[in-house]
Amino acid sequence: MIKVGIIGANGFLGLELLRILSIHPKVSIQKILKRENDIDDEFTHLSSLNLSELQTTNLGDFQNLDCVFLALPHGSAEEYVNELMGKVKIIDLSSDYRISDAQSYEKFYKSSFDTNLQNKFTYGFIESKLDEIKKSENVANPGCFALASQLAILPFESLINNISITAITGSSGGGKAPTFKNHHSIRSKDVFSYNVNQHRHLAEIYQSFPSLVDKLSFVPLSGPFTRGIYVTAHIQSNENIDIDKLNELLNNKYSNMPFVRVQSQNKLSNVVGSNYCDISISIKDNQNFVVETCIDNLIKGASGNAVECMNLMFSEDQSFGLKEMLPLYL
Amino acid sequence: MIKVGIIGANGFLGLELLRILSIHPKVSIQKILKRENDIDDEFTHLSSLNLSELQTTNLGDFQNLDCVFLALPHGSAEEYVNELMGKVKIIDLSSDYRISDAQSYEKFYKSSFDTNLQNKFTYGFIESKLDEIKKSENVANPGCFALASQLAILPFESLINNISITAITGSSGGGKAPTFKNHHSIRSKDVFSYNVNQHRHLAEIYQSFPSLVDKLSFVPLSGPFTRGIYVTAHIQSNENIDIDKLNELLNNKYSNMPFVRVQSQNKLSNVVGSNYCDISISIKDNQNFVVETCIDNLIKGASGNAVECMNLMFSEDQSFGLKEMLPLYL
Amino acid sequence: MIKVGIIGANGFLGLELLRILSIHPKVSIQKILKRENDIDDEFTHLSSLNLSELQTTNLGDFQNLDCVFLALPHGSAEEYVNELMGKVKIIDLSSDYRISDAQSYEKFYKSSFDTNLQNKFTYGFIESKLDEIKKSENVANPGCFALASQLAILPFESLINNISITAITGSSGGGKAPTFKNHHSIRSKDVFSYNVNQHRHLAEIYQSFPSLVDKLSFVPLSGPFTRGIYVTAHIQSNENIDIDKLNELLNNKYSNMPFVRVQSQNKLSNVVGSNYCDISISIKDNQNFVVETCIDNLIKGASGNAVECMNLMFSEDQSFGLKEMLPLYL
Amino acid sequence: MIKVGIIGANGFLGLELLRILSIHPKVSIQKILKRENDIDDEFTHLSSLNLSELQTTNLGDFQNLDCVFLALPHGSAEEYVNELMGKVKIIDLSSDYRISDAQSYEKFYKSSFDTNLQNKFTYGFIESKLDEIKKSENVANPGCFALASQLAILPFESLINNISITAITGSSGGGKAPTFKNHHSIRSKDVFSYNVNQHRHLAEIYQSFPSLVDKLSFVPLSGPFTRGIYVTAHIQSNENIDIDKLNELLNNKYSNMPFVRVQSQNKLSNVVGSNYCDISISIKDNQNFVVETCIDNLIKGASGNAVECMNLMFSEDQSFGLKEMLPLYL
Repeated sequence: MIKVGIIGANGFLGLELLRILSIHPKVSIQKILKRENDIDDEFTHLSSLNLSELQTTNLGDFQNLDCVFLALPHGSAEEYVNELMGKVKIIDLSSDYRISDAQSYEKFYKSSFDTNLQNKFTYGFIESKLDEIKKSENVANPGCFALASQLAILPFESLINNISITAITGSSGGGKAPTFKNHHSIRSKDVFSYNVNQHRHLAEIYQSFPSLVDKLSFVPLSGPFTRGIYVTAHIQSNENIDIDKLNELLNNKYSNMPFVRVQSQNKLSNVVGSNYCDISISIKDNQNFVVETCIDNLIKGASGNAVECMNLMFSEDQSFGLKEMLPLYL
Repeated sequence: MIKVGIIGANGFLGLELLRILSIHPKVSIQKILKRENDIDDEFTHLSSLNLSELQTTNLGDFQNLDCVFLALPHGSAEEYVNELMGKVKIIDLSSDYRISDAQSYEKFYKSSFDTNLQNKFTYGFIESKLDEIKKSENVANPGCFALASQLAILPFESLINNISITAITGSSGGGKAPTFKNHHSIRSKDVFSYNVNQHRHLAEIYQSFPSLVDKLSFVPLSGPFTRGIYVTAHIQSNENIDIDKLNELLNNKYSNMPFVRVQSQNKLSNVVGSNYCDISISIKDNQNFVVETCIDNLIKGASGNAVECMNLMFSEDQSFGLKEMLPLYL
Repeated sequence: MIKVGIIGANGFLGLELLRILSIHPKVSIQKILKRENDIDDEFTHLSSLNLSELQTTNLGDFQNLDCVFLALPHGSAEEYVNELMGKVKIIDLSSDYRISDAQSYEKFYKSSFDTNLQNKFTYGFIESKLDEIKKSENVANPGCFALASQLAILPFESLINNISITAITGSSGGGKAPTFKNHHSIRSKDVFSYNVNQHRHLAEIYQSFPSLVDKLSFVPLSGPFTRGIYVTAHIQSNENIDIDKLNELLNNKYSNMPFVRVQSQNKLSNVVGSNYCDISISIKDNQNFVVETCIDNLIKGASGNAVECMNLMFSEDQSFGLKEMLPLYL
Repeated sequence: MIKVGIIGANGFLGLELLRILSIHPKVSIQKILKRENDIDDEFTHLSSLNLSELQTTNLGDFQNLDCVFLALPHGSAEEYVNELMGKVKIIDLSSDYRISDAQSYEKFYKSSFDTNLQNKFTYGFIESKLDEIKKSENVANPGCFALASQLAILPFESLINNISITAITGSSGGGKAPTFKNHHSIRSKDVFSYNVNQHRHLAEIYQSFPSLVDKLSFVPLSGPFTRGIYVTAHIQSNENIDIDKLNELLNNKYSNMPFVRVQSQNKLSNVVGSNYCDISISIKDNQNFVVETCIDNLIKGASGNAVECMNLMFSEDQSFGLKEMLPLYL
């Protein structure tokens, strides 16, 4: 059994980690860092798990575990990473260690770059960096918009002349802090954009695909649903394409990936509640096509992908604890 | 492994059975009756399960299984029951075999009663009839409103002088057939009642609690959500009550029941996605109190309870395949 | 033209007042008190009205208007009322001046009672106090749950032996302050109760109907929608009833009321966006019946009723500015 | 007063026409064609308008009106148009008469083109064809996706080298017929595309902007809300752009248009319930920018625009009956 600890369990990603790890056949959740509220006081939906018993305020208790998940707001991980690095494997779900280039980090995050720590993390883009992740001690889990977009780009990178992405996310992406943007009375029927062509997740996309820096336009939208990201990517090709070529490119990248499914028609409700990323393609003409991907932002876009990384880092079956989470559909 | 078959897999309850039984550690889904559409053509969210391979149009294929689930619309089960009874254990999720009294059945269902078959089913109200279910060959799974209401009534039956229930359900309760009532454009912000004091599930409640026939007023509401039933029961007591007495009555019935949780405050999102029924009580004065229950109508209110019955009928742990389904919360 | 001012325009009720008064044929909005944010900075949906031009920080500017609406949080009205009373007509949408009995006020509001001011307001329950409102200088607009419930009670008060109300409200009822209860990620599929038999609006109901103090059980629920309250009232009668008698009682109270509509079947979407209260009745037996009412909590439950009061206080047609707001339905 | 009749009042667009025309200061609704259900039987939300009295089954009754609105499903208008053309002004909300080119019509609609009738209609794109509409006897109201997209394109047509549009619509766009796509249980949390680069509304966009035929990629999405369309248009310019140039182009087209508002930040809830189209722009670099528009698909995207056309056709103020419909926001 992999002995794991969770720091940040009371946030949305932490709650989802608890849900996944609690049913994982090879994991034992041993410690939860108590930072503020007792988890059973704040959330009663998991009362049957007796999580309060696992809580501790002592970070030292995490040092003899096998793996620690950090699910904290941007900029909060450093003290824990400093304490735990080298003693346990670390999977960080924040954006703090995803970017290895100082200039890009500082441009998108408007904060200073810690060279010392950032280069010790592998970026957890499984479908692109499988072997590196297997050998890693520390993984920085991708951002939700970044992962959903990169899964649309990855097979087709070589032929992209220009790409325009509009991606819409649910309200859980913003975390549990109540704000006016996620006030139910407005959000339940609203759509709005934010940080057009300036979203922080662009730093990850450009890092993975440097050739796109001048070729990508990216609009993130917020929509009136809780879970999910739906990406539409309009691609102009730099060579003639047809359906066979596109399918071949898809298969090259994804035929061995347990959680990427090629569908003839994409539908967000087909993946919500699961770790799947569904992908579909539509050709317009011999130079233009559309790729669509969708994921559950809390699972494949965050906690599920983090557990998938853990499976790889501990040489377990990549899909343990995740294939049991079938899409809810309803 | 329990070899199971499903008839009616393409409906909402059938899809939920597939989701639960696919991860059940002691179950092998062996056959799905193909009645109309190929399931993988109609629903692509489960494409990873290759369910089409399990489909057959031959009812005979179900006879050497251990257990068959029927998840069909009201009035459709008879032909299958006639063919399979005595050969396999049957769990019927429809309302066809829940009522054992001809007069009550005909009053609420406006259709004729089949004495021959109806008395061969045990009513699957686990928290009330645990031992009978364990010995049963055929179980009629309770209705969702009926179960949620009965779980509020059961501990307090003896002291009810009068009870007024308002229960609100999500849109999945009406099944997958598109109707104007479940048109998203209206339903997404609507609340409405239907069959006030005439809902068919009253037949089940009166059957379980004959003393309530003149004491219960029941209003079913439909609300703008997909999953869940939330019951508020205002109870006038025929004797003085206090919190200790009520808690004692609660514990008498539910302390050994793995899926009933007493909460200080009820909240539908605490149970959605799980087989839990949460229950809470609020005292008004020494003669009046309110009981609230909530369930996921597709799980504890239907497919989950059916699987729980199966576990009991096959002497397995009551919570196999179900305790893994933690509440979604988000 | 009635010259009106609004204090508290940036809240949910204030925004709704702006929407109604802007199209009212006999009203000119002259002043909006700027308390914090510039309204056009905070809300751009009304940018076409150039509301910023109407803003002032000077309370003195309100003294030569005809009517001032206060739409402030509980406990905030006093300074404005002290300044304006006797100079202009005041319509207060908060709960501060609804209760005239010190003991009841202090019990439900846990705060001290201002005898001096509270008795100078007429309670704006139009269907019950039409003539008093017409003659009033100051009106305290009813609470949303209180009004929806009282409209179910009013015709039947004399024959109520016992009444159990479950009332469900949308998220706008809690105002614009973001809280975890109105976080979209939870609220969009949640139902929960709060303050069972202790809701502050009970003070208003008991004030209007003192005979109900020992006869009413009241459960307020919050549901996953923005606008509306749906009330189900289970009534035990103290005398035999039939449909003719109940209809006669309904007509006695409501046949001259422009915004109460008797319907054979209630449906929240029939009133959302309008000032209507729809009401329907269902008889169970000769001693028990169910009354259902529904309103838009922001309109008939707040700002619409306040404008209806204004029309009466200024001897205008009761429905001016309100009958133009037809139910949205979609 | 303009005497109007409505054919197709029982559909979603017809209901919205009723809501708008009922409060229009210069309109008298005189006749509603009764095609199937009595409107007051089918819809009780407008019971206060006594619409049943206006119903007739006699098409002849419409001939001496001033204006008839047709709000029928695709392909149903012909018999009415043949009967009424030349006798009254006609505003058709269907897609039947929007396209004047036979080849394009047949390509996108897969049905035959009626040369005789189609060329007698002016396409009701007000912001582009104001003067023609003023002189027209017959107007074909634009499609909702087409109008929202064209409002994003119109100011910038001359500099578009390439444009990628993703547009998301609410469930009311599909009309009132219940289908599985608009089943609340699925739709309330779903996002999906359909007819990628083949949507019928492309015929309108290409007709208005022939230069875009090889330059536009168009993905229509369906989202989990009732009202509204939100368009994101990624534009590659064929010349250098800056914010001043783009603002000048915007002003050139829209400064005199009462229902187009330039916003610094777009937000669907800012327009829902109103006839406004909000538009905003974001520059990426000197060759790439994003235009966003949003409308209420039932109002500016259908019935509101149709009434705006009527105002123009009868030389009334363009905004009569429409400026009263302020955005709901909540």
